[in-house]
Amino acid sequence: MELKISQRMAAMQPSAIREIFKNMADPSIVPFAGGNPSPDAFPVKQLENIARIVFENKAVTALQYSVTEGYPQLREAAKQFANSREPGLSHAGDGIIITTGAQQAIDLAAKCLTDEGDTILCEDPSFIGALNAFRICRANLAGVPVEADGISIQGLEKAIKANPRAKMLYIIPNFQNPTGVTLSMEKRRAVYDLCLQNGIAILEDNPYGDLRFSGSHVPAIKTLDTEGIVCYCGTFSKIISPGLRVGYAIGPEALLNKMVVAKQCNDVHTTVLSQIICCQFLQSCNMAGHLAALQKLYRGKCDLMVQGLRQHLPRAEFVTPEGGFFLWCVLPKGIDLMAFVRAAGEAKVAVVPGTTFLPDPSVPCTAVRLNFSAPGNQQIVTGIERLGKVLDAFLR
Amino acid sequence: MELKISQRMAAMQPSAIREIFKNMADPSIVPFAGGNPSPDAFPVKQLENIARIVFENKAVTALQYSVTEGYPQLREAAKQFANSREPGLSHAGDGIIITTGAQQAIDLAAKCLTDEGDTILCEDPSFIGALNAFRICRANLAGVPVEADGISIQGLEKAIKANPRAKMLYIIPNFQNPTGVTLSMEKRRAVYDLCLQNGIAILEDNPYGDLRFSGSHVPAIKTLDTEGIVCYCGTFSKIISPGLRVGYAIGPEALLNKMVVAKQCNDVHTTVLSQIICCQFLQSCNMAGHLAALQKLYRGKCDLMVQGLRQHLPRAEFVTPEGGFFLWCVLPKGIDLMAFVRAAGEAKVAVVPGTTFLPDPSVPCTAVRLNFSAPGNQQIVTGIERLGKVLDAFLR
Repeated sequence: MELKISQRMAAMQPSAIREIFKNMADPSIVPFAGGNPSPDAFPVKQLENIARIVFENKAVTALQYSVTEGYPQLREAAKQFANSREPGLSHAGDGIIITTGAQQAIDLAAKCLTDEGDTILCEDPSFIGALNAFRICRANLAGVPVEADGISIQGLEKAIKANPRAKMLYIIPNFQNPTGVTLSMEKRRAVYDLCLQNGIAILEDNPYGDLRFSGSHVPAIKTLDTEGIVCYCGTFSKIISPGLRVGYAIGPEALLNKMVVAKQCNDVHTTVLSQIICCQFLQSCNMAGHLAALQKLYRGKCDLMVQGLRQHLPRAEFVTPEGGFFLWCVLPKGIDLMAFVRAAGEAKVAVVPGTTFLPDPSVPCTAVRLNFSAPGNQQIVTGIERLGKVLDAFLR
Repeated sequence: MELKISQRMAAMQPSAIREIFKNMADPSIVPFAGGNPSPDAFPVKQLENIARIVFENKAVTALQYSVTEGYPQLREAAKQFANSREPGLSHAGDGIIITTGAQQAIDLAAKCLTDEGDTILCEDPSFIGALNAFRICRANLAGVPVEADGISIQGLEKAIKANPRAKMLYIIPNFQNPTGVTLSMEKRRAVYDLCLQNGIAILEDNPYGDLRFSGSHVPAIKTLDTEGIVCYCGTFSKIISPGLRVGYAIGPEALLNKMVVAKQCNDVHTTVLSQIICCQFLQSCNMAGHLAALQKLYRGKCDLMVQGLRQHLPRAEFVTPEGGFFLWCVLPKGIDLMAFVRAAGEAKVAVVPGTTFLPDPSVPCTAVRLNFSAPGNQQIVTGIERLGKVLDAFLR
């Protein structure tokens, strides 16, 4: 007998990136396809010390079941940290929930805000992990074009007009995945106003916000939220460790309370050992210094990639990221994208085709997403040189 | 503006148990309401040593993103362990996925096997965490009565007749939560045959299987599964640590592959540090000795509770558990259950009303679930004495 897979899952395919990632054990392949932090970014010694102290002082707490909302001291520390980075982020009536990475926060928020057949507005392109979570919730995706300064406001107006009952906008305002662009302050206000006027909740995902390495801070949309329509997702994956799987959501209590119920039935609570480690890191580490070191590390990597692209792929177009992990490299029109990605693979450079990130992957696209956080500096130089040769062969 | 909660979540309430659990910091309250392992059961020293070695030798692996299926060595070690406990568990064509506790395995399996409006058959009463996960999937629950030797076969036949398109049976064959009863071998065969004949997948949840402290081992339903209709869920929460959040599912590849996709969009992967710790514990520990010690610990606690009930609540009825964490104590007919639970609380004994575990919580019920794993021996003695007095006052 063949088990029948549900309709909600029947069409879902593994993420192309994670499939590519599986084959990345080969060290001769330049890893532009993933989204890993640099292994040099992990505060290994500090985490090792903290883990030792946790086992000495709080072993039973770390090993026992805990409450779904999250380890109380971490909830407090994460809230303080988030508000120190984004002054005015938490409002009266807001709660915080610790999640198993920001991915779970996105999944829980979508479950709590949408039903089967509801429409979710999103950037086009956007983070594949979120789009797929929405698809499993059986939401319809309505993509809105992304410009050099973030989502198109005209496009958003149009999408709302076409989907007057849209329930939620999913948006990554800082160093967006996959485009690397940042939403301007003017547009943040316009996005907020439009959503408020139309009764649309905003799911603001800010995994890279602490990794700005040029330009000036632009406040989170959540800081504008006097009306309680924004759920803000943060994570320690990019600034402490993704393997620990600790993220959080800050938003209106009524929504957060439902997210807690959904989390109870999803994984009961996030690994307590991870939560205590993150908590003690936030409490004991000089976070300003730690973040400055990460920003410097990633600025260097991004600069190398930008220089390489200008030299070796002069006909590629891109917006220079002011932070984060990704650069969206638009190849000349007419390029066969999948053939290019395959040729890059043969030249030992792993890149993700831009189609992966489209709400409608059948739309033509000639972009690849390039990750500069994971590869070493020499790999970035070599990888871009190789990509240049691959592109030249296509344009010849 | 008030955010509108989705229909799937609107009616969902926090689990009564976890709400009670939150108020259990008061050490004068006897904790019969939870489902925690005994804190004495944690192999703290061994886990501490392992964590130290992991940071020394594999820090970057433990801190970096990993593959969704789970840490490869743990997948192998968990499969070997499960097959050593349940000979013949894995069949050709089976896969294994590491999950964030067995709760996530249950949630993922339900997502992959059912759509909105589908019927899931379950024991009545059953594990509230699973029932609520199914409710969030918008499945209909069809409960089947539980007898002293497990689910009623006649009841199952009746439920299948009434729900000919049921997609899945969720069942806990060993030391069931909440009833503590064990499904006989004869009934396991009957359950399997009935499901196979009717095209119904079986989700076999076995969190307590390794904690048998009397009677003889009864093989898992999965060991009978020549046709690939059973998904088996296991966990290290009860035998290593629940705080680490590591469980697994073993089942047909086609289903497991979809569960991997669903997990990608849910939490990307399970905490790597937890996975490596569990893996090294399985590889380095004398598991037979470790489990024998746990079985002895819980046998002692269960015996104390049973003796206490016979002495102080002679009119309560129960099936003596052969393992696990729970005993289902049926109070005399006519008792006002909620008043009893409140009175117990006032007498500083936390118990869960049986209604919590019913697929239809509006059905009358006079049982309470009693947990004997978490309380200390003296707490068990005192708690049952107090419950006896509370019941006497009700029967007077």
